[in-house]
Amino acid sequence: MRLIDLIEKKKSGQAHSEEELRFIAESAASGAVPDYQLSAWLMAVLWRRMEQNEIAELTRAMSESGETLNLRSLKRPKIDKHSTGGVGDGVSLVLAPLLAEAGLIIPMMSGRGLGHTGGTLDKLESIPGFRIRFSKSEIESQIKKIGVCLFGQNQNIAPADRKLYQLRDATATVDSLPLIVSSILSKKMAEDLDGLILDIKVGSGAIFRTAKEAEALAQALIQTSRRLKLKAVAVLTAMEEPLGRAVGNALEVKQAVEVLNGDFSARDFVECTLALGGWALKIARLSRSADEGRETLEKLLKNGRALKRMEEIIRHQGGEVRVLKNPSFLPRAKKMTLFKAATSGVIARMDARKTGEAAILLGAGRSRAEDAIDYGAGIIFFKKTGDAVKAGEAVANFYAANEKKIKEAEARFKEGFSISTGTVKGKPVIIKTLGLATK
Amino acid sequence: MRLIDLIEKKKSGQAHSEEELRFIAESAASGAVPDYQLSAWLMAVLWRRMEQNEIAELTRAMSESGETLNLRSLKRPKIDKHSTGGVGDGVSLVLAPLLAEAGLIIPMMSGRGLGHTGGTLDKLESIPGFRIRFSKSEIESQIKKIGVCLFGQNQNIAPADRKLYQLRDATATVDSLPLIVSSILSKKMAEDLDGLILDIKVGSGAIFRTAKEAEALAQALIQTSRRLKLKAVAVLTAMEEPLGRAVGNALEVKQAVEVLNGDFSARDFVECTLALGGWALKIARLSRSADEGRETLEKLLKNGRALKRMEEIIRHQGGEVRVLKNPSFLPRAKKMTLFKAATSGVIARMDARKTGEAAILLGAGRSRAEDAIDYGAGIIFFKKTGDAVKAGEAVANFYAANEKKIKEAEARFKEGFSISTGTVKGKPVIIKTLGLATK
Repeated sequence: MRLIDLIEKKKSGQAHSEEELRFIAESAASGAVPDYQLSAWLMAVLWRRMEQNEIAELTRAMSESGETLNLRSLKRPKIDKHSTGGVGDGVSLVLAPLLAEAGLIIPMMSGRGLGHTGGTLDKLESIPGFRIRFSKSEIESQIKKIGVCLFGQNQNIAPADRKLYQLRDATATVDSLPLIVSSILSKKMAEDLDGLILDIKVGSGAIFRTAKEAEALAQALIQTSRRLKLKAVAVLTAMEEPLGRAVGNALEVKQAVEVLNGDFSARDFVECTLALGGWALKIARLSRSADEGRETLEKLLKNGRALKRMEEIIRHQGGEVRVLKNPSFLPRAKKMTLFKAATSGVIARMDARKTGEAAILLGAGRSRAEDAIDYGAGIIFFKKTGDAVKAGEAVANFYAANEKKIKEAEARFKEGFSISTGTVKGKPVIIKTLGLATK
Repeated sequence: MRLIDLIEKKKSGQAHSEEELRFIAESAASGAVPDYQLSAWLMAVLWRRMEQNEIAELTRAMSESGETLNLRSLKRPKIDKHSTGGVGDGVSLVLAPLLAEAGLIIPMMSGRGLGHTGGTLDKLESIPGFRIRFSKSEIESQIKKIGVCLFGQNQNIAPADRKLYQLRDATATVDSLPLIVSSILSKKMAEDLDGLILDIKVGSGAIFRTAKEAEALAQALIQTSRRLKLKAVAVLTAMEEPLGRAVGNALEVKQAVEVLNGDFSARDFVECTLALGGWALKIARLSRSADEGRETLEKLLKNGRALKRMEEIIRHQGGEVRVLKNPSFLPRAKKMTLFKAATSGVIARMDARKTGEAAILLGAGRSRAEDAIDYGAGIIFFKKTGDAVKAGEAVANFYAANEKKIKEAEARFKEGFSISTGTVKGKPVIIKTLGLATK
């Protein structure tokens, strides 16, 4: 088989066979074909798209292009959650210990911050000593011991996806539904999962700004999961404003610890976490409904058991467990400055994308891949959209290494911030739920 | 400027600016951008196409990406001919000395055989000692001395085209009109030409099998030439059967020498040569019409002056001039076998593609890039389409290194050969003429 013939085929609008997709995935993983042929094929896929069965076969082939976890000896349901990425989306930090405590097996593969959005791996690494790089056998071993492991994709997991993702990023072929779906699901398939909860963010801070686009992705993910015998539920959640009350790595860990302590003041964050978690219990058949599942989870947060599980995770992954009792063990930024309301009224807009960009300017993320992260940098919100404020009242606190960064970040944040004298209607976090288990 | 942004732009259907196209051509020539980005861009161009002015600007930028000939001191019109490639198309071998003798300056850049088609450079190299690799100053110097030089594209001429052509060949992006046009014309523009005669082949042995497709290319070439202030005429010529009576390198040189000696028995070959040449004189204003031009050229063939010019070319380019008097100085194949008519009737079909493939099997061309050519291999035709034959009468003579190759070639040739008992109408070689000078 020659890749040039497969480019020709896709270019002329034909569908690939399973064998052809396996050839492409294996060649991408092994480096047996030149990058310039793979990138021409990627552009042809973006142009001509793929049929449902092509997406499923490509996903399976990419997933099998490297090592896959073997968790067959564990009888409990194995579930992971995937989010398309947002601002303040530290939900995994709470959900992983919480679902493990509820009786699920949680092999949770996460990523790094991308663009204006944060990444779970960066947040975890703000805990001193916390490790996220493991071999396949280390991951399997920890999961067998404590039911959960939080880790990053390594060279051996879905290497075809690593190669194709790098090329897509460099060749403007990121925004292709078949390529997005196969990339997301190939990594998840390598985890030996029974079910998957998909958090599809919608709004200014998300990849998809409209519910229509997000729903198209959700549908494609669910249809492909179905073909791959993976139970999946997709929840469309709001990303017009940052989620929760913290944006920034250590600040989000601190917030997660508060939630694990039963402090639900970051209402939208808790709502999102419980909604996703409820569906996880439902598709795992550990609850009769998503609502019943969320009640179970709420109890595990209130009674401190989820926090105990988090302590086990941190201990097993080499992290400083004292961060759970005393946030001063987390990195802290040198400077902080209150952001105050200029006028009285109701907060009408707190744009998620601008907030994410402001956080990057504060040092919470990377502008370039080689940049170091300031784990203590970020923003804490005292008020969110719909809250009343008085002129001069503190809306947020900005944390960074110096005043200059804070000034730049404030300016960026202001571009997406407004106070209205009229009424502002709050919007729900959960927009829509799709998938098998909703029937 | 970043290539990824330009891929994004073309992918979304937008037109490039002159500056952007120059960036692409210069980056391709210098190697400053990775091949995988160039190939993604090529696929995006194949998908989204280019506007007229984009094609012209890309052509100019590719042409200026390397060395360009400087023939400004020569006052006579500078003309080249380009053929899209066929079987038995050794027209350049006659046209170059003929047009030079008629008073034109002929910087003639040619290519090698590709697929089932022959290449002028391979044909020339069948003349012992004949050189086709020269530096820019060597080419300029020879043209100033004898008005004509036959040479191959080197690393320094239109390097952007070399790079893009290689990538297109490996990424199934050859069949894009904007890319075909810019590739052809960028090399020609580097020759400092006043005019260009385009021989667009149509039929089974050509890239374009229908007149409609060929005409689309012809129109695109003419429109782009017009924007680049290059006088161009495109002649659509038949390539359903091989042109002339010889296919194969030394065999075509021998036929060209016969034509230069005033032997016009290869009627269609001579017709094609004179038609193209007539237009060359017309656009150079050396004749009032193409017909008057061809009369002039016919005389130069009949009186032996074109042959004298060929002798000068061969001498200047290091070749064995005695091939002009005695064909035994040309390479000869070890074996030859007559191909005889199985039945009596009229030759109804002698498929150009099958004939070309048969010639490759005989050794006249390369199946793989690293293959050596057998310069003596090929086919001589005694009969062509429309000629009456008797059962057992010789139709052609096959030349190769051994019987096995001849057997394989005969089998391939037969797939495209048939004798009819009805009447067969001969088709004209010249199908249509398009371009500026036709008005």
